[in-house]
Amino acid sequence: MKLGLIGLGKMGYNLALNLMDNGHEVVATDVNDQQVQNIAQDGASPADSIRSLIDNLESPRTIWMMVPAGDITEQVLSELKPLLDEGDRVIDGGNSNYKHTLRRAEELQELGLFYFDVGTSGGTDGARNGACYMIGGDETEFRKIESIFADTAIESGYHFAGRAGSGHFLKMVHNGIEYGMMQAIGEGFDILEKSPFDYNYEQVANVWNNGSVIRSWLMELTENAFSKDAKLDDIRGVMNSSGEGKWTVESALDFELAAPVITMSLMMRYRSQEDDTFTGKVVAALRNEFGGHAVVKK
Amino acid sequence: MKLGLIGLGKMGYNLALNLMDNGHEVVATDVNDQQVQNIAQDGASPADSIRSLIDNLESPRTIWMMVPAGDITEQVLSELKPLLDEGDRVIDGGNSNYKHTLRRAEELQELGLFYFDVGTSGGTDGARNGACYMIGGDETEFRKIESIFADTAIESGYHFAGRAGSGHFLKMVHNGIEYGMMQAIGEGFDILEKSPFDYNYEQVANVWNNGSVIRSWLMELTENAFSKDAKLDDIRGVMNSSGEGKWTVESALDFELAAPVITMSLMMRYRSQEDDTFTGKVVAALRNEFGGHAVVKK
Amino acid sequence: MKLGLIGLGKMGYNLALNLMDNGHEVVATDVNDQQVQNIAQDGASPADSIRSLIDNLESPRTIWMMVPAGDITEQVLSELKPLLDEGDRVIDGGNSNYKHTLRRAEELQELGLFYFDVGTSGGTDGARNGACYMIGGDETEFRKIESIFADTAIESGYHFAGRAGSGHFLKMVHNGIEYGMMQAIGEGFDILEKSPFDYNYEQVANVWNNGSVIRSWLMELTENAFSKDAKLDDIRGVMNSSGEGKWTVESALDFELAAPVITMSLMMRYRSQEDDTFTGKVVAALRNEFGGHAVVKK
Amino acid sequence: MKLGLIGLGKMGYNLALNLMDNGHEVVATDVNDQQVQNIAQDGASPADSIRSLIDNLESPRTIWMMVPAGDITEQVLSELKPLLDEGDRVIDGGNSNYKHTLRRAEELQELGLFYFDVGTSGGTDGARNGACYMIGGDETEFRKIESIFADTAIESGYHFAGRAGSGHFLKMVHNGIEYGMMQAIGEGFDILEKSPFDYNYEQVANVWNNGSVIRSWLMELTENAFSKDAKLDDIRGVMNSSGEGKWTVESALDFELAAPVITMSLMMRYRSQEDDTFTGKVVAALRNEFGGHAVVKK
Repeated sequence: MKLGLIGLGKMGYNLALNLMDNGHEVVATDVNDQQVQNIAQDGASPADSIRSLIDNLESPRTIWMMVPAGDITEQVLSELKPLLDEGDRVIDGGNSNYKHTLRRAEELQELGLFYFDVGTSGGTDGARNGACYMIGGDETEFRKIESIFADTAIESGYHFAGRAGSGHFLKMVHNGIEYGMMQAIGEGFDILEKSPFDYNYEQVANVWNNGSVIRSWLMELTENAFSKDAKLDDIRGVMNSSGEGKWTVESALDFELAAPVITMSLMMRYRSQEDDTFTGKVVAALRNEFGGHAVVKK
Repeated sequence: MKLGLIGLGKMGYNLALNLMDNGHEVVATDVNDQQVQNIAQDGASPADSIRSLIDNLESPRTIWMMVPAGDITEQVLSELKPLLDEGDRVIDGGNSNYKHTLRRAEELQELGLFYFDVGTSGGTDGARNGACYMIGGDETEFRKIESIFADTAIESGYHFAGRAGSGHFLKMVHNGIEYGMMQAIGEGFDILEKSPFDYNYEQVANVWNNGSVIRSWLMELTENAFSKDAKLDDIRGVMNSSGEGKWTVESALDFELAAPVITMSLMMRYRSQEDDTFTGKVVAALRNEFGGHAVVKK
Repeated sequence: MKLGLIGLGKMGYNLALNLMDNGHEVVATDVNDQQVQNIAQDGASPADSIRSLIDNLESPRTIWMMVPAGDITEQVLSELKPLLDEGDRVIDGGNSNYKHTLRRAEELQELGLFYFDVGTSGGTDGARNGACYMIGGDETEFRKIESIFADTAIESGYHFAGRAGSGHFLKMVHNGIEYGMMQAIGEGFDILEKSPFDYNYEQVANVWNNGSVIRSWLMELTENAFSKDAKLDDIRGVMNSSGEGKWTVESALDFELAAPVITMSLMMRYRSQEDDTFTGKVVAALRNEFGGHAVVKK
Repeated sequence: MKLGLIGLGKMGYNLALNLMDNGHEVVATDVNDQQVQNIAQDGASPADSIRSLIDNLESPRTIWMMVPAGDITEQVLSELKPLLDEGDRVIDGGNSNYKHTLRRAEELQELGLFYFDVGTSGGTDGARNGACYMIGGDETEFRKIESIFADTAIESGYHFAGRAGSGHFLKMVHNGIEYGMMQAIGEGFDILEKSPFDYNYEQVANVWNNGSVIRSWLMELTENAFSKDAKLDDIRGVMNSSGEGKWTVESALDFELAAPVITMSLMMRYRSQEDDTFTGKVVAALRNEFGGHAVVKK
């Protein structure tokens, strides 16, 4: 089918190629003109603006947004809304907070528009060769556009999860689990690193990927990473994060649920972003106060 | 090659079949006579005692122990040591604490014996159809018996990790990572369960196994579990543990290493084994003392 | 000075008595008429409605709200706003979320009103005999009404912390620390309870209150609690919470700050409110899948 | 009464002065001759060796060891044992691991000696002016020497806790609680530090010490620390530890008990001792692998 794609970053560009490989017709736009020209050469219909993209599609239109969550998604939607016609469909393929999705879906519904929240996993490689989609929205309408997900996902790699919000929520929790798994793997290798033994981490990850209980794609990526830099000597252990882990923890708090592992995996990321902590200063000062324990001067 | 196998439990019995499938000759014994008779019908040479097993092997013998870690392993070793000849090899395929392994390897070395610690992953199915081995011991001697591991492991599923102790240590850390991953998965589904959405967990696990970042064998098992009992209504969330997680945390403490995720995954298991906690009583009593907050009476 | 007091619950009633003991004139109202009649007998001017309370005060009025945070505070403020005159002062003595306080202070400022957020600690006994106040708002205006805080606080027991919001924020963090301290105390006694020794907890708490590093009011309360019920046999360890702990953790997340101890103390409260967990069910099911470990049936 | 004191460090020297102030006669020795000369000038009988100290006391002797736990305590005991007579008493005033105490008490009992484990809190100032003692050992024998504890403790500041080991165990748990409380306080001030408000921490600690729920000696020390360095700008947040926290966590593990707050307070200390972590490197490398997220190069 023919659809519009807004956003040609790492994920969006690959998705465009993937869609076209599977016979879909893509009208694409981006704030970066160069990317629009590139995708035109790769076979898409270029659009120099959102208005132009809309004009190049017939109602009921299908518009896939692949832009950063937050302000940019909000802004693109503001621009889109007055241009769309009743019955048009908007897909949010970004990692939006599900609470925003609930609000947006309602706003669009009042305009007679359909909103789909599509959590996308699998990284940039997945976007190109077979992604994993978690989809929320109106089910009847979903069936009409199902092919664009079915065709660009890996086999069995898409799931209609229910009403609007359920897709982004599912992706959020997916990322929360991912945080926990990654921290568990990291801690495991840290224990090996401090052990009295002398392990070859690439080989360790390799054997763990062959028949062990913890075999997983993340362990394959671990193997890849160690194959390039045997002890990760070249990088610092700064663990950034982009929102979903925080939202997962906030959801746990909202539901009054103990989720210590996902929470600690997030908090250790925050800790890694600081060279020193005020917490530590207070504790060090206290130890000095009551026991005369030496403090480390700056 | 011909080898002795001590222990015909879930793991040992399957390993015996696996070894024989791959052309190895197995002399087997167990405290349970019935199991010995069964494995004899399946093609092994039965031995009604450890002494008889030793007598049925020629030096340099290879003896694979597949018995529970701790007292039983200790006892089997005590029985074995006076019966063995210099150059014989003993394999500990159980989940022994690596500190015990370090001591035992030294004790056997003084007797001119070779000790191999072989952490085994993949569960009972792995033992039967392709296990994952993490192996420590003398490398030269290891190469002489490598075939029994290579033949019974899944492809690329064994790793010689270094000197004695390194195999069990690696398996211990593997299990620590496993604890963290499992708790992360559990917490994720708990957040789904408390969410305002209505998910089909089997389908969720299925889509997460197809292209997502968290695809893994544990997620496949999650899918299996939900396929049998859609909401796990039939079981209680009591999470037992068998030692390796505890040792992993103790190792982290010994190395003065923060491993919060593995640690919390262990502690939540302990928490799940209690209906009520004394910690909770104290906190509830304190809230009542200062704020007059009601306590829940028994 | 003369002031209005809205809310005659456990805290408000005691505060009214405290204010009057210190020579202040109190006009008081509450949704519960009986409480209004009681406080009238204790010397306050009763008001049967907020309007009547306002009518009994001359501008610039000082109105102290001692009502539950959240909807009720919101509702009282809605009722108050149209009745007040420029220059009037409203004190929120409840445990309001500081983000609400920031919004409300702005709304009142636009009306020419002064808003003070006063976090109050010390429990009901403190409200009666000497509370601890953490105060945010306009400093010049604060100095005009300082006496009502100075007189009803314990000596040195009030602190002007800065602009609006800073008082409730400080109280929130105070409660977060309180959560952590209480959980630490609870865990300590739990370790004693599971130890091979046979301790008398009241005496333990007593010695810890005399010269030890952890001597504290909370430990005194612990001693009290054990003096009434030596092993806390009569109560269940259900740890409820009322918001400030959650907000403290949410603030830590907002600031991208690792606060594991305050966070875990909150999450263990949530855990204590559940008899069983879905997390636990998933982990138990997984252990059964890969290792054949028995699950506990319901 | 007359007693021997081994160890004239910060704690032991102050204890000697305290004992003499209260009319006790002290024979003192230390590996540092200067300290022995100093305490002689302060009124004690100097002994240039443990043998000489023993010779200056009549059986049944009372010997108080105030030396570092671990190897030094072990060594002093080895030296003492052959020199003592049946019925003599040895007091271990250090922070020994209670498992060592259990072993040592048994060894001494076989020699007809009495062993007392005395956990001592209150810091160096407590040792001088009134300590807090948690005491294990034989109760009948304890009553004979009770005065040395009663006289040097703060009022109500000593507790006979039960059989040998119970004193050190109690002190260990005391320190575990202390870790949790300190980390809670540290995290609280860290949240203030990152907040949009501008607090004066000394004043904050002061108001929290006057009437609030979290008033405590640790909060008084916090106030002291901030009075000297308003933002703790001069020190680094490196939090060292000396064993008891680790043993507390190990005890929780041995008892299969969830003690997340004490545990996390310990692990955050370990974290503070590292500039960078291998855990962090692994997680950062993984994020780069699947999402192309930038890593921080060294």
